[in-house]
Amino acid sequence: MPRPLYLSPDRLFPSDPAQRDIARRLYKAVAGLPIVSPHGHTDPAWFAGDAPFGNAAELLLHPDHYVFRMLYSQGVSLDALGIGNADADPRESWRLFAENYHLFRATPSRMWMDWVFAEVFGFDVQLSAETSDLYYDRITEALAIDAFRPRALFDRFGIEVIATTESPLDSLDHHAVIRAANASGEWGGRVITAYRPDPVVDPEFEGFRDNLARFSNLSGEDAFSYSGYLAAHRKRRAFFASMGATSTDHGHPSAATADLSETQAEALFARVTGEDMSAADAELFRAHMLTVMAGMSLDDGLVMQIHPGAFRNHNPWLFANHGRDKGADIPTATDYVHALRPLLGRYGNEADLTIILFTLDETSYARELAPLAGHYPALKLGPAWWFHDSPEGMRRFRSQMTETAGFYNTVGFNDDTRAFLSIPARHDVARRIDCGFLAQLVSEHRLEEWEAAELAADLSYNLAKASYKL
Amino acid sequence: MPRPLYLSPDRLFPSDPAQRDIARRLYKAVAGLPIVSPHGHTDPAWFAGDAPFGNAAELLLHPDHYVFRMLYSQGVSLDALGIGNADADPRESWRLFAENYHLFRATPSRMWMDWVFAEVFGFDVQLSAETSDLYYDRITEALAIDAFRPRALFDRFGIEVIATTESPLDSLDHHAVIRAANASGEWGGRVITAYRPDPVVDPEFEGFRDNLARFSNLSGEDAFSYSGYLAAHRKRRAFFASMGATSTDHGHPSAATADLSETQAEALFARVTGEDMSAADAELFRAHMLTVMAGMSLDDGLVMQIHPGAFRNHNPWLFANHGRDKGADIPTATDYVHALRPLLGRYGNEADLTIILFTLDETSYARELAPLAGHYPALKLGPAWWFHDSPEGMRRFRSQMTETAGFYNTVGFNDDTRAFLSIPARHDVARRIDCGFLAQLVSEHRLEEWEAAELAADLSYNLAKASYKL
Amino acid sequence: MPRPLYLSPDRLFPSDPAQRDIARRLYKAVAGLPIVSPHGHTDPAWFAGDAPFGNAAELLLHPDHYVFRMLYSQGVSLDALGIGNADADPRESWRLFAENYHLFRATPSRMWMDWVFAEVFGFDVQLSAETSDLYYDRITEALAIDAFRPRALFDRFGIEVIATTESPLDSLDHHAVIRAANASGEWGGRVITAYRPDPVVDPEFEGFRDNLARFSNLSGEDAFSYSGYLAAHRKRRAFFASMGATSTDHGHPSAATADLSETQAEALFARVTGEDMSAADAELFRAHMLTVMAGMSLDDGLVMQIHPGAFRNHNPWLFANHGRDKGADIPTATDYVHALRPLLGRYGNEADLTIILFTLDETSYARELAPLAGHYPALKLGPAWWFHDSPEGMRRFRSQMTETAGFYNTVGFNDDTRAFLSIPARHDVARRIDCGFLAQLVSEHRLEEWEAAELAADLSYNLAKASYKL
Repeated sequence: MPRPLYLSPDRLFPSDPAQRDIARRLYKAVAGLPIVSPHGHTDPAWFAGDAPFGNAAELLLHPDHYVFRMLYSQGVSLDALGIGNADADPRESWRLFAENYHLFRATPSRMWMDWVFAEVFGFDVQLSAETSDLYYDRITEALAIDAFRPRALFDRFGIEVIATTESPLDSLDHHAVIRAANASGEWGGRVITAYRPDPVVDPEFEGFRDNLARFSNLSGEDAFSYSGYLAAHRKRRAFFASMGATSTDHGHPSAATADLSETQAEALFARVTGEDMSAADAELFRAHMLTVMAGMSLDDGLVMQIHPGAFRNHNPWLFANHGRDKGADIPTATDYVHALRPLLGRYGNEADLTIILFTLDETSYARELAPLAGHYPALKLGPAWWFHDSPEGMRRFRSQMTETAGFYNTVGFNDDTRAFLSIPARHDVARRIDCGFLAQLVSEHRLEEWEAAELAADLSYNLAKASYKL
Repeated sequence: MPRPLYLSPDRLFPSDPAQRDIARRLYKAVAGLPIVSPHGHTDPAWFAGDAPFGNAAELLLHPDHYVFRMLYSQGVSLDALGIGNADADPRESWRLFAENYHLFRATPSRMWMDWVFAEVFGFDVQLSAETSDLYYDRITEALAIDAFRPRALFDRFGIEVIATTESPLDSLDHHAVIRAANASGEWGGRVITAYRPDPVVDPEFEGFRDNLARFSNLSGEDAFSYSGYLAAHRKRRAFFASMGATSTDHGHPSAATADLSETQAEALFARVTGEDMSAADAELFRAHMLTVMAGMSLDDGLVMQIHPGAFRNHNPWLFANHGRDKGADIPTATDYVHALRPLLGRYGNEADLTIILFTLDETSYARELAPLAGHYPALKLGPAWWFHDSPEGMRRFRSQMTETAGFYNTVGFNDDTRAFLSIPARHDVARRIDCGFLAQLVSEHRLEEWEAAELAADLSYNLAKASYKL
Repeated sequence: MPRPLYLSPDRLFPSDPAQRDIARRLYKAVAGLPIVSPHGHTDPAWFAGDAPFGNAAELLLHPDHYVFRMLYSQGVSLDALGIGNADADPRESWRLFAENYHLFRATPSRMWMDWVFAEVFGFDVQLSAETSDLYYDRITEALAIDAFRPRALFDRFGIEVIATTESPLDSLDHHAVIRAANASGEWGGRVITAYRPDPVVDPEFEGFRDNLARFSNLSGEDAFSYSGYLAAHRKRRAFFASMGATSTDHGHPSAATADLSETQAEALFARVTGEDMSAADAELFRAHMLTVMAGMSLDDGLVMQIHPGAFRNHNPWLFANHGRDKGADIPTATDYVHALRPLLGRYGNEADLTIILFTLDETSYARELAPLAGHYPALKLGPAWWFHDSPEGMRRFRSQMTETAGFYNTVGFNDDTRAFLSIPARHDVARRIDCGFLAQLVSEHRLEEWEAAELAADLSYNLAKASYKL
């Protein structure tokens, strides 16, 4: 007998009745607010072309590294799951997922997936070996109908605005198509880009020199001279802004920043674009460029995001056989106090600049990030990120950040995902957890309920709009 | 309409009814215990001169870096707040605070302030833009009457003893005045000093050589020779002890200790007092002096406090324009296991010595500090400090320390503040949080209620008196 | 009047009624499951010889470094406790423990001891100065009767299998006696060994060269040549496996691993067995040997355990006067992401290999270990260890590990103790805490109760059997 699938209206609320009652009231007022998604990795081609998604495995399993990393950790073969293997039968891959669904108990993937199954596809039995084919067939059939095409789901999900993330080397053609559809009245969905220059900022990025050549072509500047390189950034940033971007994003291995003189910077640029670059040069150049980018943000008003601290491609066999972004990026201990000082020393006192900082190292929450954000006007704290984008992770974020940084140095929720169907579930989890956290504060008489109600709306909606200038 | 201000008698207790009932009973028995404040930064001039405090902004806003750092982080100008700007209208500065009071939601500053507003000044409406003038006027008027002068508040607050913190270069004249008032029967308040020698121990302290010259004059020893320098410390320690001091305090950038031979120490002293000091010399000298100070404590019985791990003056613009202690000190990751080994190897087994260790790095609680304090007879753990002196911070302290260090290797509460009016509120928060923590243990049958009642009194009062020899 | 001693049936369950009811139901179904103890330090001589234990102090106080380190930290002399002092009167030593029993409030030692007192010896009054002699006499008398001899207690405790830990230099004679008793039907208790090669793997271990000589003799290989050394390991591993071992164990100061070429390894082996070894050589050899041992595990199927990160013998006076394992080992910050990469790069993708990793640094739970174990097929997470084997420690383990690693990359509970009488109490604490954690998940609708019931049995029993191949 299949087990029932049921989403309790009280899920994620504290079980203490006093707290739960408050949480229910707070949540009720924010549950229906539109989704503001200021940072993520959905594919603009979906919304430009509006082609139907494929089958269940292709949509929900293959692109979700949260899901296949867990299966892989328990000995399930990536080939059999269809990861990098077009020959795998998607129905059989889906079955491997279904029969191992117990592995996801108490993980956020389970919660997001169950929401998609119940709310998007209407299932009322749990995914399991027994229901694998039922799931596969019903999902795959649904995806073929118009109501499940990307734009229709975007509208159904109540998304007010979503930001994608592109490299300066991207032509933004898909965004142009979407903007044309907006202008013509064909479709009203607001999809904007964000400027993520890692491929032309990180000298250790695959194809860095080729990237600079393309950067030159796209910008009409000589990106192999330092001044031309900076001018190319300014031009591409302006182009991204013209396509709706309100932010940049920077994914660096560490939070190191530097503030070099023009002479030092030019010499370093010559090294990293030449033959004799050292690893230290690469790190220093990335560090320097964060400060340069902050300066450009002060000029052009783009909000700056920094996502540091992931050790990328930890598994050499996996990288050699399956490439990047296959679930083998691992967080590392990250220093912020010393690392950010050059940047904050230069621009931290600028109240007109917004730098949104993320971390994968929770030990920095109370020790470093809350004290820094609770002081510097330019610095705000991004929400619990990646492995910490989870109920317990969000609770740790709030309980460790709030007493020193307050709520107003944080910026609301990011879903940061390419798993489009899970976006409402992710925002819903954040809203529920925040309402539960606020309910605890109210129940312990640390906050009045009217204040908690204001905060619930701020954390769910207002802060994201204001911080990201949306 | 102004919002009501009401301090619930159950504030900070767990909302679970079983736990709350126990917490209420535990708290009732300790709520009225006298305040023992063994470490803090109140100004002895207040109690010597007993002059009225000034206006609301001068008393509650200008000296409180917790408050103005948060306002500054949200773009409020320090000049407008009157920080380092005597021209600012204090009523207008107060208004900036009042209209931004929502920034402090769920912070300890909010809790302490509300207590001061309700209990010291009798307000029953919340501070806001609307009530700003009401607050400013009523507070400023109250401060002019006798019942709000420092000695009267000291008595009203039920303070049994308070320790201030002075440098060896301080003449302790204010303490002499207070002791004379005690002796004559003019006033009974017990105010003692503590020996904080950073200005003559840290070779990187502003004016280090000038400080040594003054140290020589005050002690009658040649503080530029190593033996004279040590003799000067011994003399000043004895003088401080004669003025009531029972403790020393050491605020170092790291927890590094060293145990040099006399020959090594003399050579190092020559370098740090000469022209060619390196940063490593400075660090080694501070490290060595912690061990020397522990030795002197073994001789003269002064309890030794170590407050390591703050990166001071992180914001160079702020330091250049506003100086020290303006909210820009940031905690750093701090190693204790290796750093303390020279000191503990030399003196850690001395049961007659008390070293009270604090940290700004909570990751060391369960990993390093509880195991160290749960072993070395000389080592005790100071309470949750600075950014962690907060409800959640205290809960983390207890839940991460207690299972390995127990309660009896901790030393009760420190308010560690110069915000005199908030002292009762701070002790009250600690008592409430400890009672809540104990109530959870009782409700989970990990402790009997009679044991929790003993512990509540120990944590609120007895341990501070015993540990600090008060 | 002595205080009553009473073990509540609800101890360690959440006090929230909804959660407690669920926890009770979950616990009821697992409370009576047999004990599987896959890693620990009981003495096989007890079960081989089945001699009566001695007196109360000798059994419960002298070998328990959790207990005497706390007493020592509060100034109680080790000599007076009888630690390394045969002249101490055990009754007087016991009295010192009894009159300081309040020091253990809210520590796991208190909980384990109270269980032993109530359940093994039938006490119904609390240990205190007043009841010290009553305790001493009744325990000492009980130990003289047959029902309290090691094998009888083993059977009474419901132990299905227990693993001890021996060095390759151990002849395993006691295990041979036990196996003979098993074979003859004299006694059915299953006691197996585990291969802990630190004395012949760590070049800084006391007597390393002598150990290698003995290793040669026992194996019949020349352990002073690298190839002979590896052959000796293979032979001793096979011998241990023939005596029931299913696992190896490695206690290193750090988690460093290395994967040297044969040539590099031979040259390093020559250095660490020669006269000119550096500390870096020793660290590199330990690091390399972890990878070698993983390779051997892939061949012979022994599960590999790694217990890194303790700073051993932190107190030099104690080490000089009392030797190893006297409560002065202190955890240190430990990196895993970089440290484990050589080993995981070589063998991490092997689904047939099981490496069980422990940590004393809780900051690595969510940041490093859960992401690593949630990806690499070979890697599993050992339970909360040593100072963290406690109610709060276990809660942190589950709440920080589960969302990324799930439950099925963990391996159930280890008691890891030589305190034989406390083994049932330790497993009981783990079962209660896990049931409480699961109950919270159910009460927050993050898990169905039928799933929690499956998990409770898995965490209490099935995972330990499966992971350790028992």
